[in-house]
Amino acid sequence: MNIPKTEHKRVVIIGGGFGGLNLAKSLKGKDFQVVMLDKNNYHTFQPLLYQVATAGLEPDSIAYPIRKIFKAQENFFFRMANVEKVETSENKIITDIGILEYDYLAIATGTTTNFFGMEGVAKHAMTMKSVTEALDLRSLILQNFEKALLENEEEQVSFMNFPIVGGGPTGVELAGALAELKNHILPNDYPDLDINRMKIHLIEMQDEVLQPMSDKASSKALAYLKDLGVNVMLNKSVASFDGNNLTFKSGEQLKSKTLIWAAGVKGNLVDGISSTAIEGSRYKVDDKLKIDGYDNIYAIGDVGILKTKKFPYGLPQVAPVANQQGDFLGKNFISESKGASLKSFTYQDQGSMATIGRNRAVVDMKAFKFQGTIAWFVWMFVHLISLVGFRNRVITFFNWSYNYFSFDKGARLIIRKFKRN
Amino acid sequence: MNIPKTEHKRVVIIGGGFGGLNLAKSLKGKDFQVVMLDKNNYHTFQPLLYQVATAGLEPDSIAYPIRKIFKAQENFFFRMANVEKVETSENKIITDIGILEYDYLAIATGTTTNFFGMEGVAKHAMTMKSVTEALDLRSLILQNFEKALLENEEEQVSFMNFPIVGGGPTGVELAGALAELKNHILPNDYPDLDINRMKIHLIEMQDEVLQPMSDKASSKALAYLKDLGVNVMLNKSVASFDGNNLTFKSGEQLKSKTLIWAAGVKGNLVDGISSTAIEGSRYKVDDKLKIDGYDNIYAIGDVGILKTKKFPYGLPQVAPVANQQGDFLGKNFISESKGASLKSFTYQDQGSMATIGRNRAVVDMKAFKFQGTIAWFVWMFVHLISLVGFRNRVITFFNWSYNYFSFDKGARLIIRKFKRN
Repeated sequence: MNIPKTEHKRVVIIGGGFGGLNLAKSLKGKDFQVVMLDKNNYHTFQPLLYQVATAGLEPDSIAYPIRKIFKAQENFFFRMANVEKVETSENKIITDIGILEYDYLAIATGTTTNFFGMEGVAKHAMTMKSVTEALDLRSLILQNFEKALLENEEEQVSFMNFPIVGGGPTGVELAGALAELKNHILPNDYPDLDINRMKIHLIEMQDEVLQPMSDKASSKALAYLKDLGVNVMLNKSVASFDGNNLTFKSGEQLKSKTLIWAAGVKGNLVDGISSTAIEGSRYKVDDKLKIDGYDNIYAIGDVGILKTKKFPYGLPQVAPVANQQGDFLGKNFISESKGASLKSFTYQDQGSMATIGRNRAVVDMKAFKFQGTIAWFVWMFVHLISLVGFRNRVITFFNWSYNYFSFDKGARLIIRKFKRN
Repeated sequence: MNIPKTEHKRVVIIGGGFGGLNLAKSLKGKDFQVVMLDKNNYHTFQPLLYQVATAGLEPDSIAYPIRKIFKAQENFFFRMANVEKVETSENKIITDIGILEYDYLAIATGTTTNFFGMEGVAKHAMTMKSVTEALDLRSLILQNFEKALLENEEEQVSFMNFPIVGGGPTGVELAGALAELKNHILPNDYPDLDINRMKIHLIEMQDEVLQPMSDKASSKALAYLKDLGVNVMLNKSVASFDGNNLTFKSGEQLKSKTLIWAAGVKGNLVDGISSTAIEGSRYKVDDKLKIDGYDNIYAIGDVGILKTKKFPYGLPQVAPVANQQGDFLGKNFISESKGASLKSFTYQDQGSMATIGRNRAVVDMKAFKFQGTIAWFVWMFVHLISLVGFRNRVITFFNWSYNYFSFDKGARLIIRKFKRN
């Protein structure tokens, strides 16, 4: 890989998500060599992928070139690569662009979609875990309307049904954004189509949406979704999907050409780590974030599972955990190199939030919980300042302001036609 | 296609470029039904495609949803379709989504890349005639540097050579933008790569660049390109390209993995129009823009060839001709429907311009010609106001301002990896 050997220890980070970025940043100017591998040359701000999928933002608002983030960090090296295997006994990583040795390895590969073994769903459903998937979903949504125009009423309905499985933040936010497309934009774009035939269904197997949030937030989010015209189905599970029909476990069916799957994730595991270190598709880590049974291999963010008193089933798979763990691990590497004692990771829970649509958001903080317009502005503010870089913040802010005043979303472009399986 | 028959005559427009848009707009509120067909659901502002290719702009800045443009025009219908054939004897168009009858047909399909029969070039070269092609080129440019990092010096050079064939506005503007990437951005992004090995070659078979412009503009553009470090090769033609080696007609060779082809265009012809109506791959039209030998079929913009006294080889293939012809044809349709006499098309030549880089542009107007910083600001102003819609203007303006002050381009994203043939 043409990366020079130096006298400093080499930290290899697999993944340029929140955890990986923060770890690399925390080692700036320190006596380590940092090598980051990612299959993309950019960091993705995943919480806003649904806005790319619904034509509100272009990729450059939420994706940021990794090399640009680290252009002033001399000890940082980046390689765009797919990791094939870790040879833990030799401290080596095998990739599609060659072999790389490490002193410390941090696995920060995040999660991938979990279809829970349902083959039809895996084959035909749309997902939203990457920029490419979000762009595909955007194209497919718009293509569905272009196609519906050419069909009789029964077929139209099938193209205009949008069942979304999973009542977590992704499903709720996507359902809200689709409802706003339906309410404000599509009737103007398709005057010769009856947009009332478009139906957004949010399917959740539990008895509330946003289950990990407070009851108040869950019930308010449900009310907001209903306000916007989303058909929320609670206590409902999917049995199968064949690309034309969605079948529920209860036996009911829904004719739909589209299924959006936001119902679960699993750790994005790397070959070569012992299966004894894995629990529920995540790496078991101790409070130093070290993976069970290894001396110099760590997991940070969603791919690791750290159980605490407050979170006996593991810390939540959210951005703040990844951010804090990346930062924490870097500091511990520095302490270790100085012979200082190592700290244990403790999660600072800053609360959580979700937006359902214009003036409709829910925020749970430790001290207080609130909903509605103020929550919506808080949500926008927090997401804006969390974006990487001045440019992305300004462009996103402009797009949101434009959307707010014009009720319009600018990026209704079918750039690459999506072909169904 | 589910388009209602009305008592009004139906004008079918193939193509949503400058000509098609202006024709459709000019029939707003008039007693015609307007149906536009395009393979994309958006209009492309082609003059700025090179900025998408060089990571300066995202597609939503230069592409505009066609339905959004016409959302307040009741007599307008849009269908996303590929036209397969025109049955002129039956006034019918065959498309991949069905058959459509027309009373008037306006072909506004523009041009496609002309490889002049060179198979290797057609197979391996990159082009820049659409948003998708521009995004592919962007990915490939960035991928080349990621790959160069892994290679020895000889191979690095091969990945870092960027020969551009064609010294017209597209080639000149792209060469300038690539040079700015090289001078300001890539050295920071790739500190472990010797960016001096990157070479931008502009290959032109004539003895000057921007040949249709004034001699002053051509010589100044050449000087600007040299200032920026572009290797301009005049009086030079390409014989072949096999994906690894570019061979010139003189016999010389250049080792290069990339070839960017901006050397020529040909009309994007529609099957079913008599070959006697075609000259040099364009439709021969009279001064009413009617295609030779047809009563109700017209060509507007680049796909037509209208010879005038001043332009004995046909009007130039530029946006203003298409804009004016679209508008003209609509007015003639209206006159005809009222039994008024028809006008003949006359081209109002407003001059031409090209930008080579920051503070470096050339402008030829009838009254006066100028170059440099003022020309550059004029170029930016004219292109900004020519973009469709407030939102696209603001986002482009912000991106340009950001680029001006930070010497940075934000969209260095390899969204879809490009696979070479």
